[in-house]
Amino acid sequence: MKKVLKGIAASDGIAIAKAYRLVDPDLSFSKQTITDVDGEVQKMQDAMDASKAELEIIKSKAKETLGEEEAEVFEAHITILSDPEMIGAINKEISDQKVNGEQALTDVTDQYISMFEAMTDNAYMQERAGDVRDVRKRVLSHLLGVELPNPALINRPVIVVSHDLTPSDTAQLDRKYVKGFITDIGGRTSHSAIMSRTLEIPAVVGSGDATKTINEDDVVIVNGLDGEALVDPTDEEIAKYEKKEQDYLKQKDEWEKLKTAETLSKDGVHHTIAANIGTPQDIQAVLDNGAEGIGLFRSEFLYMNSAELPTEDEQFEAYKSAVSKLDNKPVVVRTMDVGGDKKLPYLPLPAEMNPFMGYRAIRISLDRDDIFRTQLRALLRASNFGNLWIMFPMIATLDEFRAAKAIYNEERQKLIDAGQKVGDIKLGIMIEIPAAAVLADQFAKEVDFMSIGTNDLIGYSMAADRTNERVSYLYQPYNPAILRLIKHVVDSAHKEGKVAAMCGEMAGDQIAVPLLLGMGLDEFSMSATSILKTRLLFKELDSKKAAKLVEKALQAQTNDEVKNMVEEAMDSLK
Amino acid sequence: MKKVLKGIAASDGIAIAKAYRLVDPDLSFSKQTITDVDGEVQKMQDAMDASKAELEIIKSKAKETLGEEEAEVFEAHITILSDPEMIGAINKEISDQKVNGEQALTDVTDQYISMFEAMTDNAYMQERAGDVRDVRKRVLSHLLGVELPNPALINRPVIVVSHDLTPSDTAQLDRKYVKGFITDIGGRTSHSAIMSRTLEIPAVVGSGDATKTINEDDVVIVNGLDGEALVDPTDEEIAKYEKKEQDYLKQKDEWEKLKTAETLSKDGVHHTIAANIGTPQDIQAVLDNGAEGIGLFRSEFLYMNSAELPTEDEQFEAYKSAVSKLDNKPVVVRTMDVGGDKKLPYLPLPAEMNPFMGYRAIRISLDRDDIFRTQLRALLRASNFGNLWIMFPMIATLDEFRAAKAIYNEERQKLIDAGQKVGDIKLGIMIEIPAAAVLADQFAKEVDFMSIGTNDLIGYSMAADRTNERVSYLYQPYNPAILRLIKHVVDSAHKEGKVAAMCGEMAGDQIAVPLLLGMGLDEFSMSATSILKTRLLFKELDSKKAAKLVEKALQAQTNDEVKNMVEEAMDSLK
Repeated sequence: MKKVLKGIAASDGIAIAKAYRLVDPDLSFSKQTITDVDGEVQKMQDAMDASKAELEIIKSKAKETLGEEEAEVFEAHITILSDPEMIGAINKEISDQKVNGEQALTDVTDQYISMFEAMTDNAYMQERAGDVRDVRKRVLSHLLGVELPNPALINRPVIVVSHDLTPSDTAQLDRKYVKGFITDIGGRTSHSAIMSRTLEIPAVVGSGDATKTINEDDVVIVNGLDGEALVDPTDEEIAKYEKKEQDYLKQKDEWEKLKTAETLSKDGVHHTIAANIGTPQDIQAVLDNGAEGIGLFRSEFLYMNSAELPTEDEQFEAYKSAVSKLDNKPVVVRTMDVGGDKKLPYLPLPAEMNPFMGYRAIRISLDRDDIFRTQLRALLRASNFGNLWIMFPMIATLDEFRAAKAIYNEERQKLIDAGQKVGDIKLGIMIEIPAAAVLADQFAKEVDFMSIGTNDLIGYSMAADRTNERVSYLYQPYNPAILRLIKHVVDSAHKEGKVAAMCGEMAGDQIAVPLLLGMGLDEFSMSATSILKTRLLFKELDSKKAAKLVEKALQAQTNDEVKNMVEEAMDSLK
Repeated sequence: MKKVLKGIAASDGIAIAKAYRLVDPDLSFSKQTITDVDGEVQKMQDAMDASKAELEIIKSKAKETLGEEEAEVFEAHITILSDPEMIGAINKEISDQKVNGEQALTDVTDQYISMFEAMTDNAYMQERAGDVRDVRKRVLSHLLGVELPNPALINRPVIVVSHDLTPSDTAQLDRKYVKGFITDIGGRTSHSAIMSRTLEIPAVVGSGDATKTINEDDVVIVNGLDGEALVDPTDEEIAKYEKKEQDYLKQKDEWEKLKTAETLSKDGVHHTIAANIGTPQDIQAVLDNGAEGIGLFRSEFLYMNSAELPTEDEQFEAYKSAVSKLDNKPVVVRTMDVGGDKKLPYLPLPAEMNPFMGYRAIRISLDRDDIFRTQLRALLRASNFGNLWIMFPMIATLDEFRAAKAIYNEERQKLIDAGQKVGDIKLGIMIEIPAAAVLADQFAKEVDFMSIGTNDLIGYSMAADRTNERVSYLYQPYNPAILRLIKHVVDSAHKEGKVAAMCGEMAGDQIAVPLLLGMGLDEFSMSATSILKTRLLFKELDSKKAAKLVEKALQAQTNDEVKNMVEEAMDSLK
């Protein structure tokens, strides 16, 4: 083999295929003064025609493999390329200013982009800015004679190599052909990592320089189990990893058998394994993986995939459908958690210097109780159709919980007074703010359950934004300070006879699970694809031995010390 | 009286004077097509001449009252108004585009401002952008015939009424005439509040709508003791507040007598009261107020008031001067705490979505150890001239402290090997990150002292940026979660025989002091102006009774509950 790339194991499994570089080519150019205006206008026309022809092919291909809806974006691109006003403006720029086509295209499209982006209250028009950018890129590539990657045209098994993967990149990928991912940046909780786990595609992220090292069509082995990739492997290496892939698939079959099993530790203690979901479309995977409930149903999709505030009925239908499908297993719906890095086009939020520490989640709901009451009424009505729990995000103080509960009780009473039936709903909070974790014993007296959101809890406790590469080393789930906070939450809940849950990435982390089991955490909510693996691990662990390990870990000094401690103890826990 | 404004008591004392509105007038205009080009050019010339004449007056006045250096900015403004290139461009814009002068001025100065602001690696040129903005404002005011406030021309006692106060606003204010401040926004820890305490000028901040309510020359009473302002008071009210002012001044005399006294509680327990300072100029106030040391010497001034990295010798001189003046009292120097909201022109930092949770303070020092080593060498050399301690900011993990200490030891050894003498330096950390507070017992084994930075500790613990008005209600120093973290730090330090200090605003807060005394905090470091008041409070409090109160407060549920608890118990603690 020529090279091994080390990265972060983002999604389990092994994949072997040729590389497909999803990397933008160099589209830089310099401004030039031209003399042959007609020639330049013709060059522009040719580039546009070529772009249009290419888009027609991509569109019909995308319709076939990805579906009607995903293909629509390319129709929008073709429409832009047929806009006489824009084409006229570009030609005028060429003839008036005597500039080369590349420059004229850039100047005119810049104006369109600014105009669209300025319409901050119109999500539809803002998306058009992205379309104009994409179209410009394509026309430029033809003007400059370089080739753009067209992921929608992939028609052979590939390993996608890219700097990062955005949601719009992945919308174009055909799952049938994409066997693995490797990216330059990102961590276990980055968008690309979460997505690869959802799609069950082996992935290594944060490799540093995959796009610099791997050439188009290089054979690549993505080892998503250990977080590494082999470029240009020998036949022996290929054989070895094919064997490893077989072993992994066999292990997956083992997990498969646990689909309908109860989650029991070796010494017979039952814990609940539930799933985190983002949209109702995720429910199938939840059922397929044998979850015992939904521990976190993010309600943002209702707000973010919409041009205006979702109505009470729209919300009601979504919640009703979810609880019905879960067949009386608990579904914990988290109320609107926007703000931070989640923006709504129709609810302009102030620009903030530190949005993660700003106006978001329950802080918005308490301030804008009109929006909050609509959501609560929809939830109350949906509670008749299954086992629905409500969870408030970003609770920092008891005052906030009390205020939220008071509003909930008002809406509940109004519905009852109006003759509506409402179910018996448990009210709980996310523990993701350090102050709430420290005061968990007081919260436990008033809430029905607490669910620890580890991503944010670790971020705030370490004062480190996990999406910031420069400080991502401080995302330390095994740091004894974090473990102590979690232990305090679990103990506090149990002292008051309440449920202690966790719905962050950590709940499905194979190093963290023995510690959380040892602490007696009641519910582990994770990505659906981690459920069976974790259920198998439970089966092998003795909870009393795990509790002993926790005592030691709480007195450790660093994240690495705990990690080593668990790895060394793992066999003795079984 | 016509109106009472409620706000936040930002700086003690009472002031009565007429209002001076430091508020920008409406300078909006509409773009117009003109026909008389010559007339418009003449109008522009007149406005520029008038602006220049006005600036000459302001400059000579400023030189007189504020000093040579502060007056220089006005000279810079005059120079801009004499720039033939800019004037030419404006006139050309008027004649070519047939637009009114207001529009031409705006268009041309916009170009200058963008150009200057684009020079991100040149702090000097970036400041010029601000100058062009100021000049434009002045010329516009003459074109539109409205008057700008000229704070440098104030020549009678005034209460300054403004939306907020920036450092550049206050540079123009003559302390002799400014008797009080009242602002619309800001909290107790905002820039304007801290500055008013430093200048010992009574202030009420965050009043909401002072600039809407108070007219120029309205008589205003600023009551900085209770956080309110009376607009247009009756004679009786004026008399009452004059009496209150006298009482306050008498009380200040009481405090004065404590200048050389030891800080003792009623039951004779000694605590140290030290001062927080930002520059060597603050040292006089530290000595004047009888501080027993400097608990926080922010070293950023060395980096921020400079066009390039300060040399080792420049730093050495500054530290040496500080420790020498303190005459063997301890001086705790905090190493470079930039990043977050503190930018350095010559050290470009990445744009971050959440700078408070980003690359800053010790994170930069460990990454850029060239800068860190220079600072440590300067500190080591200065340690021969007094009692110097070193404190690392933003420590989240023991790994970070160990890495910083290892670098310190290397530089220390190098100096010793080179035959240099170095003093006996205590090495400590700021506790301002929740994870470090939770793990204080482990830190205490390795550090010489811990100093709690409450501003950031509260911010991270509550996941709320205290500079963000929308969530400033979460800045809750008495929240039991915060008190528990502080108590854990104090207990942990004492268990290992180490010093527990505090250098945040909370150390001088009159509600917090009884609690901190009850916890046994060793050192209270605060604004110099709070020292004597706090020493007097100590004298009245029984530390054993305070300890009992702490036990109760730690089991409380909310910030307000603790606040009421302390207020009610205050008399019984005496």
